[in-house]
Amino acid sequence: MRRVHLAGPASRSDLANYTGLNRSTVGDLVAELTALGLVHERAGVRGVPGRPSPIVAANPNGITVLALEIFNDSIAAAVIGLGGRILARARAERARDGSSPEATVARLAGICRTLLEGRADQPPIQAISVAVAGVVRRTDGDLVVGPNLGWRDVPLADLIRTSLSLGVPVFTGNDADLATLAEHLRGAGIGCDDFVCLWGEVGVGAGIIAGGRPLSGRSGFAGEVGHLPLSPEGRLCHCGARGCWETEVGEDALLRRAGRAGSGGPLVVDLILAMADAGDPVAISAIESSGRWLAIGLAALIHTLNPERIALGGFFATILPYARDALTAALGELAIEPLAVATIVPARLGADGPLIGAAELAFEHWLDDPASVPLIDRPEWSSAADRRVAAKEVDATRLAI
Amino acid sequence: MRRVHLAGPASRSDLANYTGLNRSTVGDLVAELTALGLVHERAGVRGVPGRPSPIVAANPNGITVLALEIFNDSIAAAVIGLGGRILARARAERARDGSSPEATVARLAGICRTLLEGRADQPPIQAISVAVAGVVRRTDGDLVVGPNLGWRDVPLADLIRTSLSLGVPVFTGNDADLATLAEHLRGAGIGCDDFVCLWGEVGVGAGIIAGGRPLSGRSGFAGEVGHLPLSPEGRLCHCGARGCWETEVGEDALLRRAGRAGSGGPLVVDLILAMADAGDPVAISAIESSGRWLAIGLAALIHTLNPERIALGGFFATILPYARDALTAALGELAIEPLAVATIVPARLGADGPLIGAAELAFEHWLDDPASVPLIDRPEWSSAADRRVAAKEVDATRLAI
Repeated sequence: MRRVHLAGPASRSDLANYTGLNRSTVGDLVAELTALGLVHERAGVRGVPGRPSPIVAANPNGITVLALEIFNDSIAAAVIGLGGRILARARAERARDGSSPEATVARLAGICRTLLEGRADQPPIQAISVAVAGVVRRTDGDLVVGPNLGWRDVPLADLIRTSLSLGVPVFTGNDADLATLAEHLRGAGIGCDDFVCLWGEVGVGAGIIAGGRPLSGRSGFAGEVGHLPLSPEGRLCHCGARGCWETEVGEDALLRRAGRAGSGGPLVVDLILAMADAGDPVAISAIESSGRWLAIGLAALIHTLNPERIALGGFFATILPYARDALTAALGELAIEPLAVATIVPARLGADGPLIGAAELAFEHWLDDPASVPLIDRPEWSSAADRRVAAKEVDATRLAI
Repeated sequence: MRRVHLAGPASRSDLANYTGLNRSTVGDLVAELTALGLVHERAGVRGVPGRPSPIVAANPNGITVLALEIFNDSIAAAVIGLGGRILARARAERARDGSSPEATVARLAGICRTLLEGRADQPPIQAISVAVAGVVRRTDGDLVVGPNLGWRDVPLADLIRTSLSLGVPVFTGNDADLATLAEHLRGAGIGCDDFVCLWGEVGVGAGIIAGGRPLSGRSGFAGEVGHLPLSPEGRLCHCGARGCWETEVGEDALLRRAGRAGSGGPLVVDLILAMADAGDPVAISAIESSGRWLAIGLAALIHTLNPERIALGGFFATILPYARDALTAALGELAIEPLAVATIVPARLGADGPLIGAAELAFEHWLDDPASVPLIDRPEWSSAADRRVAAKEVDATRLAI
């Protein structure tokens, strides 16, 4: 189930090779999963010697998860089915006006109800999983602090459980961690055991995969790299410290250096890139500065973690083609030689990453025991930030096909 | 075997509880290990109800490892036996004069021969394991670069293998990583799954335990935190970059600020601490500056890794009592609140840490199959920097007794 969920349709003989089970056992398991409505089979491709082996594919509607996202400037919901298929999705702008957790969740619940009404003829969703721009405590799933949201100590899982009343488990996770999980399982980090995703918008955060496993730290707070103190004489950060990396490398810093301080967002960033294309020296210099500051923080991460690959997501992915030269030059100066091998790539899943990662967080619980439908809302499942993910048992290198 | 090796003598009934095996199976296994000369048994303590359960202890001479250390200003060798017992040890100063790998290894070999002659009546050593102040490549065990040693691309394992001609496996590892392993298994990090050891002398390095496992990175280079680019307008580092953390926090920086630039070492550091005790404002200010720069780098590590505990070793342990206030104050300003929980403690094993860690690297291979004596020199064993350590199978919290 894990194999077809993560790596797509596979023939019965591929599954026999992959699992090391014999074909008749694989046949029995596939029959069981088919009876549960979790997989479909279709005829195999002809033309290979012998009888074609049937192709087994995940049934997207076999298990569906309601994935939610709460960002500084947007909220989103998606219904995501087995195999990682996005079956329905809606996104809405969120004004950066400090609206309350209750108001935000109420708006999100409205979006969810519309999404689910459109699927009234399908089996009910089995779990809710939320990606939020903040620090989530793994012991209870609460949001400890969402600096850019202006939130603190929000019982987020409970708020969503109550607001949606679906009677299913609710998982919560940090947006950067979940987007990293998604990139590791389905994006730029497939097959890469030492992988960092760096996410930049106004705030900056990282998700870390080390030795094939998510690095969560003692309390699930690892990867708060926006607050690396890299600029001792620098600006005051909203967190209260001086010179945090995000004050030099976040979206605000680019806007400020480009003379566009004020309200940001993708359109303003695109405008600055267009100005650079047109040869505007202020815009070009601002982007180079972002590239150089990206390199400074990446050098810190590289020296600490020695990753094989670093994916840049969000606003960083947008500016990467423009900032690449400045970034590479500065990294060449800063990284000691044997560590300079880490490749810097754009994240692949785009804006869907956090939603896909949130869904995987829920799927992972269920994949441990695929026959356990419906999922029961166990208390310990609300606090899933530290779950070891699917990658632990799936040889991701074999899945990169 | 792992249990008595790492946590000391245990009664047969403790071992039955620990392993989940019944007492007769434990008795059979103990008999087998006793026959191999790997454990001793002695009578249990009277006074508890029922027949006292015999106490099983590792036999230090059952397996012995020759642990070596190559530092900037010293070389050392020790014979370390099962249970982590240091049976013999010798240390010599090494001038910071850039002496060659060959000359250094030749001196070390002389020390080893003297040590081993003193043990001519004991069983031969079973492995050699080397802790070196540099970056060791896990694919072949070579030293890629030892910046403070002035070495580059040294086939260290082969050099030692040839020089000592003992026909046993040779392991190599980074000094910081091995000292961290030792602290995790036997020192300040027992029972702590998210643990960082920060080692400071002239150079600065860290060893990282994340989720209970050593974090080695793609090529075994993780933890090169001396080169975190924390001081953008700072001094040139010997690595070629500007503003590396060790230029602000290493021993040289303290000496420079205290007006004692020149040859360093523990005696000079002690002198500066004595001056601070006597109220010398320059010495006090220099130590405070070290404390503040320690906090800056620790904040970077804390935001990236969210450790539960950080142990400071080497010169950092020496200055910690004097620098603690400045460190705590600066960390309070720099670390976002939920992450500020990491406790900062001195390392416990002192100068023996790297040797003990080197021995554990060798023991770990053997503990996977305790009956495999003598150890065979398998090629893949020379490159053991990435070994998952004993901690993976031993519940360290239960061992902190």
